[in-house]
Amino acid sequence: MDSKMTCAEALLRAANSAGIDVCFANPGTTEIPLVQALDNVPQMRPVLALFEGVCSGAADGYGRMRGSPALTLTHLGPGFANSIANLHNARRARTPIVNIIGDHASWHLAFDAPLTSDIASLAAAVSGWQRKIERADDTVRDVKAAIAASMQRGGQVATLVFPMDFQQQLEKSDRPLDNSPPEACKLPLASRGRIEDIARCLHDRPSVTFLLGGPALTERGQRAAAAIAEYLGAKLYAETFPARIERGRNLPDVDRLPYFPEPAIKALSGSRHVILVGAREPIAYFGYENLPSRLAPDGSVSALAEPGEDAVEALEALATALGVKPVSINRPAQWSAAPEGQLSPQAIGSIIAQTLPEGAIVSIEGGTCGYPFATASAMSSSCTLLTNTGGAIGQGLPVAIGAAIACPDRKVIALQSDGSAQYTIQSLWTMARESLPIVVLIASNHRYGVLQTELGRSNVAHLGAASAALTSLDKPKIDWQAIARGYGVPAVQVADTTALRSALSSAMRAEGPQLIEMSL
Amino acid sequence: MDSKMTCAEALLRAANSAGIDVCFANPGTTEIPLVQALDNVPQMRPVLALFEGVCSGAADGYGRMRGSPALTLTHLGPGFANSIANLHNARRARTPIVNIIGDHASWHLAFDAPLTSDIASLAAAVSGWQRKIERADDTVRDVKAAIAASMQRGGQVATLVFPMDFQQQLEKSDRPLDNSPPEACKLPLASRGRIEDIARCLHDRPSVTFLLGGPALTERGQRAAAAIAEYLGAKLYAETFPARIERGRNLPDVDRLPYFPEPAIKALSGSRHVILVGAREPIAYFGYENLPSRLAPDGSVSALAEPGEDAVEALEALATALGVKPVSINRPAQWSAAPEGQLSPQAIGSIIAQTLPEGAIVSIEGGTCGYPFATASAMSSSCTLLTNTGGAIGQGLPVAIGAAIACPDRKVIALQSDGSAQYTIQSLWTMARESLPIVVLIASNHRYGVLQTELGRSNVAHLGAASAALTSLDKPKIDWQAIARGYGVPAVQVADTTALRSALSSAMRAEGPQLIEMSL
Repeated sequence: MDSKMTCAEALLRAANSAGIDVCFANPGTTEIPLVQALDNVPQMRPVLALFEGVCSGAADGYGRMRGSPALTLTHLGPGFANSIANLHNARRARTPIVNIIGDHASWHLAFDAPLTSDIASLAAAVSGWQRKIERADDTVRDVKAAIAASMQRGGQVATLVFPMDFQQQLEKSDRPLDNSPPEACKLPLASRGRIEDIARCLHDRPSVTFLLGGPALTERGQRAAAAIAEYLGAKLYAETFPARIERGRNLPDVDRLPYFPEPAIKALSGSRHVILVGAREPIAYFGYENLPSRLAPDGSVSALAEPGEDAVEALEALATALGVKPVSINRPAQWSAAPEGQLSPQAIGSIIAQTLPEGAIVSIEGGTCGYPFATASAMSSSCTLLTNTGGAIGQGLPVAIGAAIACPDRKVIALQSDGSAQYTIQSLWTMARESLPIVVLIASNHRYGVLQTELGRSNVAHLGAASAALTSLDKPKIDWQAIARGYGVPAVQVADTTALRSALSSAMRAEGPQLIEMSL
Repeated sequence: MDSKMTCAEALLRAANSAGIDVCFANPGTTEIPLVQALDNVPQMRPVLALFEGVCSGAADGYGRMRGSPALTLTHLGPGFANSIANLHNARRARTPIVNIIGDHASWHLAFDAPLTSDIASLAAAVSGWQRKIERADDTVRDVKAAIAASMQRGGQVATLVFPMDFQQQLEKSDRPLDNSPPEACKLPLASRGRIEDIARCLHDRPSVTFLLGGPALTERGQRAAAAIAEYLGAKLYAETFPARIERGRNLPDVDRLPYFPEPAIKALSGSRHVILVGAREPIAYFGYENLPSRLAPDGSVSALAEPGEDAVEALEALATALGVKPVSINRPAQWSAAPEGQLSPQAIGSIIAQTLPEGAIVSIEGGTCGYPFATASAMSSSCTLLTNTGGAIGQGLPVAIGAAIACPDRKVIALQSDGSAQYTIQSLWTMARESLPIVVLIASNHRYGVLQTELGRSNVAHLGAASAALTSLDKPKIDWQAIARGYGVPAVQVADTTALRSALSSAMRAEGPQLIEMSL
């Protein structure tokens, strides 16, 4: 090891030797030695964002697509705080993420300078693992521990605080950096006994619903699950907000469990067994008066594979136990009559599904068009959908950035509601800066649709002045074309299906990012 | 009390009866009963922001100008998390803020639904006081406690978590709401003995520097301090980042202590006594190798009034003890030759200072033009400056919103660096929505200037590829006029002093918000 290497550089080299090659960063003064060290580690690509929530959301998208740790670099407690909302989503998605937070010089911390805050308390809410580097010499050991931790429990957020003085110190160790990447995230096997118990339960083909989540939503998982379901006459659902689900007409049509509790309860009712495969027990998104939190029938729930366990292996073992083999599927593309005229969420979902190029990645945020498209994607070319796992909004655009950087050969679509897009609108700039092949589709209805729906659910006949003021976004209407151009992203507005088809078709051919405002 | 009132409504009425008349909100489903309750409490003005950091920053600006508690409403842990950075600044500013966070229904929390997180851990980092409402019947008591807490210790952040089911329950209490507002934030008096000790110390007029902060920077505080300083031949500084400082040619010229440690140490050197008046001991903003954290000479520091104590009363008591009287000041407006030609930070500072209408409020964020203007404001019409107290960036635009709402008769200027403006760029929309008389001035140099300065301080001759990529904002250059128009704010770009003067002059006359990009 070069004896002139700083500990900042040693950390980056250790991360890079573990396979991490991108750093999603919004640095400040306490990260300057890390910024300088990046000059010496050109194999680590720095991706700058104008706001930290873009960094953490991009890391989430990158980690979901790569299945290996993503790296963020943020500035002290307040900078890190801006990344928390999207780290909350990453925590729910079990995405492996390593956050490096620069901190004050260790000897300066006690003086409570203006930017000092309780970083550990902030990090605790989203991190499965956290540590502060206590001595410069521990740097390499600690970052390796953070990387390893990020791949535990099926993937989690690991946060490492790096005081500025330690970043600047020279790495003293003469141990060479271990260049072998740590083993990939290995999921523990589900209990064999549990699988056998479930196989026995299913022997007489009772009414069964499988709820798939996590790795069960890979192609292999879905094929095994579909074969089992076909054999048993069972229902098959994906969790409502999967971190990642493969879709398309070459795969079983595993629709998502409905969002609202009433249809979800209905979907699960009548099932003697609701079998979880990498999914958590279905729980109402919010607690509603006179509706239960638990959505599955009492006593029906069992787990073939817990979240964080190897759900694919469990499904294949169950298929073997039941004597069924995964089937290959290839539905012909049968589209119902092409929708024409004004845009509606259904028409938008259907047109996008028809237009998707093979291998596209679709980052979905917002219910308006997200559900219709997800349903329609059963008939599309093979694609990957990424959804908002934790409900912290402002997730879709950054996740699209991370997915595009993780998979440079695939087209990325960000299907986004207008309200939620605003929380991390600065994403557009990073898309332009990195020339990412992302088509941003804004479903623009100039209101917080979900909140107006909730007001409707509580029997509000018409909105009062305050309810209207707090749920409508029409005064002023955001000019999406202007915002996009402001950040260097070409944009158009469409109001009917013909214009949408034409805009989509040119946007899919463009090299860099494009934004289409779809007026509803 | 109307027996049909929900606890959500009771909370709002209790807050309103304590003098709170604005709610800076970005609600979600768990705040729907509060949104509905706002329909019944029209004297509480709901102000919607597209991002929670705008809410908390606006609350900070409102609280600083009103000197009474400001109210925010955010959505669970992730929504609240987005407000933390600006609450960090508010904590440093000792601004009285009450955060209401909607939470899941109490009976739903245990099921760990997607949006569930450790709110208490997040709130701890910024809140001087926090509580969760444990029973619906405690609602009014708890919000009163939160309001009272926000005014303790010279002002602090108080956070109250309000489960959705309790919001919906009917208020059972037949106690009428107490309509008398709680007593205003009364600062405890500084120790009389301490004041007398200091007066004795100063009797033989040793070399003294006064460092003023908090209430010492009001007009009364500055006049008393100036009289004392004149009598003693003492130096007078304001803390580097005051929450609020009155400026103008009718006031003593109290410049801010320099930001970088070297000039700050020089400014304080030679002082036998550095006397703190409502300010904290001067500490280096960051810890730099070979420079001390403490900026004042060893053993020189004593406090006439601690932060959170009544600094004005302490200064007036000291003046009396020394036998001096506050003087009235009215410097003639003597401007050096009007700067011409290309824009420079000095020219910008000087032109704004010359243009300020009487009573303007200037929210300053970013060093590029902030320091030159603050210095130049010694010669301006009387005005109030608000600065970034905690270093969490994205503070200037939201604070301008809050100040404009708190003081509808005063013109507000947001003097803003381009990098920092992006963190809460959604502020522009709220400015347009509320037609606020704010002139946004963007000092646009398309880089993170402070980071390039820091890289320069660490003897970097030229920027490496990564250092350049992480500190420059010129690829693509943000089109500020497009962004502003996208949010409904008219905008112009200026590149020389003549154009800036002309643009400022029309912007000052406009009723709603205006943005001027000042190209550097």
